[in-house]
Amino acid sequence: MSEYRHDPISDNWVIIAFARSERPDEFGVSRWYRAATTCPFCIGQESETPPEIARYALPGEALWRVRVVPNKYPAVAPASSNGRVRSAPFRKLAGRGVHEVIIESPTHVVSLTDLPETYAQLAFRAYADRLTAMRREPKMAYGVVFKNVGPEAGASLEHVHSQVLATTLVPQTVAAQHARWKRKNRTGNVFERFLAEEMEDGSRVGAQSERFVALCPFASRVPYEVRVLPIRHAAYFERTDPAHLDELARLVRDIFRRIEAATSHGPYNFIIHTAPFDTGDHDYYYWHIEILPRLTRTAGFEWGSGCYINPLPPEVAADRLRQL
Amino acid sequence: MSEYRHDPISDNWVIIAFARSERPDEFGVSRWYRAATTCPFCIGQESETPPEIARYALPGEALWRVRVVPNKYPAVAPASSNGRVRSAPFRKLAGRGVHEVIIESPTHVVSLTDLPETYAQLAFRAYADRLTAMRREPKMAYGVVFKNVGPEAGASLEHVHSQVLATTLVPQTVAAQHARWKRKNRTGNVFERFLAEEMEDGSRVGAQSERFVALCPFASRVPYEVRVLPIRHAAYFERTDPAHLDELARLVRDIFRRIEAATSHGPYNFIIHTAPFDTGDHDYYYWHIEILPRLTRTAGFEWGSGCYINPLPPEVAADRLRQL
Repeated sequence: MSEYRHDPISDNWVIIAFARSERPDEFGVSRWYRAATTCPFCIGQESETPPEIARYALPGEALWRVRVVPNKYPAVAPASSNGRVRSAPFRKLAGRGVHEVIIESPTHVVSLTDLPETYAQLAFRAYADRLTAMRREPKMAYGVVFKNVGPEAGASLEHVHSQVLATTLVPQTVAAQHARWKRKNRTGNVFERFLAEEMEDGSRVGAQSERFVALCPFASRVPYEVRVLPIRHAAYFERTDPAHLDELARLVRDIFRRIEAATSHGPYNFIIHTAPFDTGDHDYYYWHIEILPRLTRTAGFEWGSGCYINPLPPEVAADRLRQL
Repeated sequence: MSEYRHDPISDNWVIIAFARSERPDEFGVSRWYRAATTCPFCIGQESETPPEIARYALPGEALWRVRVVPNKYPAVAPASSNGRVRSAPFRKLAGRGVHEVIIESPTHVVSLTDLPETYAQLAFRAYADRLTAMRREPKMAYGVVFKNVGPEAGASLEHVHSQVLATTLVPQTVAAQHARWKRKNRTGNVFERFLAEEMEDGSRVGAQSERFVALCPFASRVPYEVRVLPIRHAAYFERTDPAHLDELARLVRDIFRRIEAATSHGPYNFIIHTAPFDTGDHDYYYWHIEILPRLTRTAGFEWGSGCYINPLPPEVAADRLRQL
């Protein structure tokens, strides 16, 4: 059970997901399984997860390569109640949503780079399929795909996986960004201009394919931050043509490999941003991927100001990524 | 040397602080000194810090209790150049600013709760004095006091200390918040209303003194998040009457003790938000303190959406804090 709560000071929503335990170490960070024998994501352990939603394999294969299951400990869940409770100035909503896990390998590996390219390609198809399914769910307003690698990045399981989460509200930060991009679009598309400048400059481009580019943004927040975008306008990640999705999966897997080499397999977060689920015109928006290595720690200054201190210029980061 | 850079996509500024090292482990998280003999903040090691800016002691005492020094590795620094470099759509500025460290004990302790109350009171005077000094510096636009406790909270030194940082620009996140509070103030002060509701409800109040209240906000982002506010309007932390500052230091030290007991001395960040340095009318604003225990890890969903998943309801957190 959970609920969305709004903070009248910051204007942000949070999800209060009631803790199942009252132990003092209930937020312990040692929930990191290394032994494949106890891993609920390994092949043969399928009964350890809630009933499967989908599975992916190559044509003719009997065994799965990628598997989609509900999150066993969801932050949000399909709920009967969706009542808005007002207790001004405090607003809250039942924590309705969808929270799924995409298991990206039958064997116990930690990265898509430990596997042939086809696994990454099947995972990207699963991302697109799940976002498409969530967009069709009644009341869902926003969906995001993310991957946490390493305990410092918030992962509790080592076995390579991603998560998909859909909520009944568009988080305020996301809504404010969209409002700004839409407003700015009257004088030119923010993403198009960004892409044109970065690709002309070239010094921060880490890797590129025919339709997609991976670059370390000019104002990177963390060392080896990477933003992946389609070179031509596309607002919906999940509408990417399957053949192009394969190309994207190949590029992202290659960038994962370069980041892993540069950071000695350090922790990172991976986020796919696609247009919210409303029926609005999203011509101002490009879907995009963020990869945020977690080598530096968010400290008081960043929490207080929203301004990040990054010790590695993105030009240096991109240069190192290109060479690896 | 550093520079402010603007991201045209997110509209945020970051500080690129050029790394001094090219080693692969340059962002290593093991820079956490435990041995008092090598600690540059301990009494007798004064020559290990840049020249002292101020020192605090009780009347008649020869030795210092609290000491202010420039940060040896500043994120921003007083610079000769302040030129705005435009390379549309990318904007950058020289990383001009002030970055100081407040050493809060002559002996090697990790928390203000390890010391008598007078140390916390002298530390709070130093916070106010340094913000007052930075507000008078030419070109400075924004200042923040923060404390990182524990390596997971971004601290690199164990010895109890805080930092003060002033920048020549108001970070976008902060500027947007102020614009919102000012706009909302036409129909009622956001902080006043928040305080009235929280104090009337009472279930999330952790501790209170005559003039200040410490509470776990209704929409807390993390377990044991605490917000400390003046009960009556005050926009500038640094203009707090010295006697009231002593009362505040006592309350905050008490809350630190309760949080330390609840979290088994877990890592946390502490942030003092005061009005920006412009000469505007800040009647819409209350200075406030945020304390953010770092027991949970910011993962992909939080990075992507700005929406936090908190497993501990603030009512439970406040109840535990009250009982400790």
